Amino acid sequence: MYRYKITFAYDGTNFSGFQIQPHKRTVEQVLKNAVNKIAKHPTPAISVIGSGRTDAGVHALNQVAHFDIPYHLSNDSMRKALNSILPLDILVKKAELVDSDFHARYSAHRKTYRYRVDQGEFVNPFKRNYTAHFKYPLAMDKMKAAAKDFIGEHDFTSFVASGSQAKSNVRRVEKIKIYRDEHDNEVIFEFTGNGFLYNQIRIMVAFLLEVGSNQRPVSDVKRVLAAKDRTQARMTAPASGLYLVSVDYGK
Amino acid sequence: MYRYKITFAYDGTNFSGFQIQPHKRTVEQVLKNAVNKIAKHPTPAISVIGSGRTDAGVHALNQVAHFDIPYHLSNDSMRKALNSILPLDILVKKAELVDSDFHARYSAHRKTYRYRVDQGEFVNPFKRNYTAHFKYPLAMDKMKAAAKDFIGEHDFTSFVASGSQAKSNVRRVEKIKIYRDEHDNEVIFEFTGNGFLYNQIRIMVAFLLEVGSNQRPVSDVKRVLAAKDRTQARMTAPASGLYLVSVDYGK
Repeated sequence: MYRYKITFAYDGTNFSGFQIQPHKRTVEQVLKNAVNKIAKHPTPAISVIGSGRTDAGVHALNQVAHFDIPYHLSNDSMRKALNSILPLDILVKKAELVDSDFHARYSAHRKTYRYRVDQGEFVNPFKRNYTAHFKYPLAMDKMKAAAKDFIGEHDFTSFVASGSQAKSNVRRVEKIKIYRDEHDNEVIFEFTGNGFLYNQIRIMVAFLLEVGSNQRPVSDVKRVLAAKDRTQARMTAPASGLYLVSVDYGK
Repeated sequence: MYRYKITFAYDGTNFSGFQIQPHKRTVEQVLKNAVNKIAKHPTPAISVIGSGRTDAGVHALNQVAHFDIPYHLSNDSMRKALNSILPLDILVKKAELVDSDFHARYSAHRKTYRYRVDQGEFVNPFKRNYTAHFKYPLAMDKMKAAAKDFIGEHDFTSFVASGSQAKSNVRRVEKIKIYRDEHDNEVIFEFTGNGFLYNQIRIMVAFLLEVGSNQRPVSDVKRVLAAKDRTQARMTAPASGLYLVSVDYGK
């Protein structure tokens, strides 16, 4: 068997998230169908293992997965073969033959997510599936100051959705970058960490938007982290603004 | 009755074009439903008259329509009332009480369309519904030179799709602008004229792409216009790249 690592983008709009579910169109299912078609429908079917799930409507610029296949193809042929089968809302950017100890989930060291917030006066019909919309002024300095308190290893119990199946809510946030994209009239949030809990980024973004619009003091991040109580951070920003930017397998 | 002119944007992806058709989701139908809801479902139902049709998948930044309604609302209230009912893929940008001799179609003097061609190496999943994709180098100078021959009043029989119901194929193209959008790695075509035939812009764009990629000589526009034969200009660029930018009612 040959193990391939693939790096791929998808528009999450028309997917019911990453993970296979019965009778739903999911990224994992569509990829699995393509890989098994290339492998001429073997029994048992080949599985595709992603670096992690994304929710319905969440996008990816460079998601990573691996699979084992009984044929050897050049990296370029594998990429082309997959793209020739896949629908246009998934694009395989890279396919690489890797060692059999590479694992898309367990080998991942850190992930980076981006969150796009459109600041236009109205919901732009062309951005409704690709951004969140928040029209009120945002104090960048306050959001940046508050974001600093997320950095480091914390128990993120206050910032996880109730559906989470994680054994521990402790995660390490390594970096948060917040900036304006003047060209597109957006505020962009970027988070890098060793892993994120269910809805964690969308809850942190909603919290920072509250800080930036003077609905919460900057000091609230510290207070709410310490509370370990999900009811304290009430809002969740919509899936449409969230992008998995990269999965890092370096040391 | 009060006549309102509305200016609105829509993402054409999930519409079967502008014009009402049975059992289809169309822009005209969705607008008509909203206006009649505001007017409390009068009998007979109020019609919404657009400046013209757009095909399935074609977008609009500033489409125009009018309707007559037995209630007077301020312009701002009318805009808000419509937006509160309309789905997120249509946005009313402006509503204006106008004289009863204003007609969205008959009063229109000229229209401007934009066509976006993405030059990335692969079809970008996030642009698949919002651009055409053409990865080969495009000679801007050749396309600009060829485009000049479209300017003026011509019989566009060679550049109209077979479904056209126009009585005459003579139209006046006033202006064509072609430029690169470096930020988005796109080539943009803009056409202004007194009216365009069915698929005319998409056929002209496909023709100019052939000129720009050395599949046709620059002189072919003149030759094919003179031929008055649709089989000469064979390709039609996809609906996804086309945007109605504005409808001009000035003199």
